[in-house]
Amino acid sequence: MPPPARTPEQRKRDVLDRLGRDVDAWVATADPSTGAPYMVPLSFLWEATSSSGAHPPPSEGRAPLGGPSLLVATPSASVTGRNLRASGVVRVGVGDTRDVIMIDGLVEALEAAELPGGTAEAFAAKAGFDPRSQAEHYLYFRVRPSRIQAWREVNELRGRDVMRDGDWLVPG
Amino acid sequence: MPPPARTPEQRKRDVLDRLGRDVDAWVATADPSTGAPYMVPLSFLWEATSSSGAHPPPSEGRAPLGGPSLLVATPSASVTGRNLRASGVVRVGVGDTRDVIMIDGLVEALEAAELPGGTAEAFAAKAGFDPRSQAEHYLYFRVRPSRIQAWREVNELRGRDVMRDGDWLVPG
Repeated sequence: MPPPARTPEQRKRDVLDRLGRDVDAWVATADPSTGAPYMVPLSFLWEATSSSGAHPPPSEGRAPLGGPSLLVATPSASVTGRNLRASGVVRVGVGDTRDVIMIDGLVEALEAAELPGGTAEAFAAKAGFDPRSQAEHYLYFRVRPSRIQAWREVNELRGRDVMRDGDWLVPG
Repeated sequence: MPPPARTPEQRKRDVLDRLGRDVDAWVATADPSTGAPYMVPLSFLWEATSSSGAHPPPSEGRAPLGGPSLLVATPSASVTGRNLRASGVVRVGVGDTRDVIMIDGLVEALEAAELPGGTAEAFAAKAGFDPRSQAEHYLYFRVRPSRIQAWREVNELRGRDVMRDGDWLVPG
């Protein structure tokens, strides 16, 4: 028997704790022209409150600025880089298969020079590599979560939403 | 420093070992009409040599029968179930983010009655639940790998293909 289902408050605490500590995520994208699914593990930096980049993103269809975000980096020409630029959407899995965080989000592509001060350094420290010093051209992708879910076993599927439409279900 | 890159032979052994032992996989799909990516963890059964179902699948675009396959099960009406039925393709991640197996495959949907004898029982024993006894209608999805990759750290990205076009790069 799995342990009892966690409260919404505990799930949110566990989500924030894991997003702050974990280094890697499973990043699922798709080619919007063919519908081909893709997925790779990438390192990420969680930012509880993200400031805007040097160049504000276009307003249409973007999640509001200032909320939490998850930053990944991958070669601009990689499959994931191309899918993210073309589609602007992503689904991210963090944790392991019996202690899952699933994030659906809108994605904004940023050059290193467009990141707020200190962000590229914080990313490199967390990820263990610096996209700015790679031979290939990397882009950063800021994921603004619209939905976050968290569950461990089947008894936690009910109540797995901890964020909907960009809003935490448990305030504070 | 990560350990030295494994040989192709060792990677194949590690892949087969992990596919035989691991219970869960990250299953990435997409809606072919909207291109929306999706991903969930699902339990799987690896079959080194899969026999055909009671009703042979249509021949067009299907991987050849008799090769290895990975069997998952999910509600027919779930997002993953709908995407798999509509697209017939999947990308599956097994392991963790620093010891990855990535599988691209073609997917065949099967009712429980279409599985070869003993397969549903083997699946239930491995997964810890029996799709046949759920209230919701489940389908089984047989994934026939066309490409399998395996890597741990950056130094193993080179040579990460262990199967291409359905053929193991290391025979035997």
